[in-house]
Amino acid sequence: MIAKRLCIIGVGLIGGSLARAVRAAGECEHIIGCGRNEASLQTAQKLGVIDSYSTDAATAVADADVVVLAVPVGAIGSVLTQIRDALAEHAVVTDVGSSKGSVVDAVKAVYSDIPVFFVPGHPIAGTEQSGVEASFAELFQQRRVILTPVAQTDVGALEQVTQLWQCAGAQVSTMSPEHHDAVLAATSHLPHMLAFALVELLNQRDDSDEIFDYAAGGFRDFTRIASSDPVMWRDICLANADALLELVDDYTQGLSRLADMLRNGDADGLLKTFEQSKQARDRFIG
Amino acid sequence: MIAKRLCIIGVGLIGGSLARAVRAAGECEHIIGCGRNEASLQTAQKLGVIDSYSTDAATAVADADVVVLAVPVGAIGSVLTQIRDALAEHAVVTDVGSSKGSVVDAVKAVYSDIPVFFVPGHPIAGTEQSGVEASFAELFQQRRVILTPVAQTDVGALEQVTQLWQCAGAQVSTMSPEHHDAVLAATSHLPHMLAFALVELLNQRDDSDEIFDYAAGGFRDFTRIASSDPVMWRDICLANADALLELVDDYTQGLSRLADMLRNGDADGLLKTFEQSKQARDRFIG
Repeated sequence: MIAKRLCIIGVGLIGGSLARAVRAAGECEHIIGCGRNEASLQTAQKLGVIDSYSTDAATAVADADVVVLAVPVGAIGSVLTQIRDALAEHAVVTDVGSSKGSVVDAVKAVYSDIPVFFVPGHPIAGTEQSGVEASFAELFQQRRVILTPVAQTDVGALEQVTQLWQCAGAQVSTMSPEHHDAVLAATSHLPHMLAFALVELLNQRDDSDEIFDYAAGGFRDFTRIASSDPVMWRDICLANADALLELVDDYTQGLSRLADMLRNGDADGLLKTFEQSKQARDRFIG
Repeated sequence: MIAKRLCIIGVGLIGGSLARAVRAAGECEHIIGCGRNEASLQTAQKLGVIDSYSTDAATAVADADVVVLAVPVGAIGSVLTQIRDALAEHAVVTDVGSSKGSVVDAVKAVYSDIPVFFVPGHPIAGTEQSGVEASFAELFQQRRVILTPVAQTDVGALEQVTQLWQCAGAQVSTMSPEHHDAVLAATSHLPHMLAFALVELLNQRDDSDEIFDYAAGGFRDFTRIASSDPVMWRDICLANADALLELVDDYTQGLSRLADMLRNGDADGLLKTFEQSKQARDRFIG
């Protein structure tokens, strides 16, 4: 059994789905949830996602073997401060934040250095939905989880968090926090910025109702991620601002080159770019 | 019966799906396909999508009541030239091009003005797949079709093309070619440019394999349209270059404003933008 007592702080889509998966795998005895919204915790308990709950983080982590921080990355420092003196001696703590450099910084701001029992992590899974009602045990099946241990991270703690995600069906790999942030800025954070920016642009038009009325499946899929939780994405973008700003700059230059081709009627240049993109995307899907 | 003899020039995803739908509705007796690739036409015939075919457009349109040009917009002028002297006197001609101003121009370049029997049209439907193998009769169910008749367009021809799409399950509306192009630049052409540009950016990186390896569902959906047919999209972008360039410019400015918020740590500004985008997108989906 991976954890007798598992504490999930933030029982939303990710935290709730992990709780469901660990329970389904029979890898814990008791799951205690924690959050600020008691109604949501009651729902989670009614749904059988958690066994008990507390709105007080220090109370929630008492005696827990594994503590998962499934809150927006901007809230991690505050939660760590609340639980610091209440953690069991053997407790392992991990998080699910989409940026890892900022989480490492937040942990360092509370502790003098990353404690051996803290394993920064990020499941690359999710939907545009939020909240425990949207959670499901299969969310992490066949999905990747990146753990970003630092030099002093305890090998046993890393192994325990690895097993936690593996029992939920995920493929776990490790890399440095910096490398994680560069990769995710490209594959996730930039696309979210681009999708938010497109919907914002169209929404500001006088004819926005008509525009959306004639939008089809391509637009629906392209903008799906713009329905994601705004607070979560504000935090992620700010937390990974450096890597993201560099990419926005690169992207703007690439888009400007495409626009130049269009302006100059460069049919061959456009075709070559579109062909290469299609090949790369088809390869990725295949 | 809408057409005794229906001629589809370009039996791909759109042309093939329309043929299937009209046949399923029992609204024609004979469907003749036309294209440059004989193997593809043979496949279409084997699949029962068309009854017969010719690789010669003039031969294909002979005696047809309705002729549908389902070729890339860049090829419409050339096809019109080929069929000009072979059309039956009562024939109605329509197209499925994603830009309408350029189609009107192409028609004017062949005829001195838009002939009364030509009804420019655009079904807002499709997938990222191409070819007759990807076609299916339900593609246009509940989807919108925009027809862009001009002043001299024959009312009977407009009615016949309207019925053609209605029998395929589509909701038909009309607007001017210019207005169509402005709307579609925003909801379709710009998103395609943005998706192609993103995949291009990531594909050029040294670590592109790893990048794609860690991409998840959000990226998959966001870039789905980058798997679309490159020739078709080269033609569409060039055909609607003016409206598209204006939007790329607006978009770049909006993205730059978002980047400034990020650079300045403007959490409230980011949150407000993301919230408004999410609300607009959720409203569009609802």
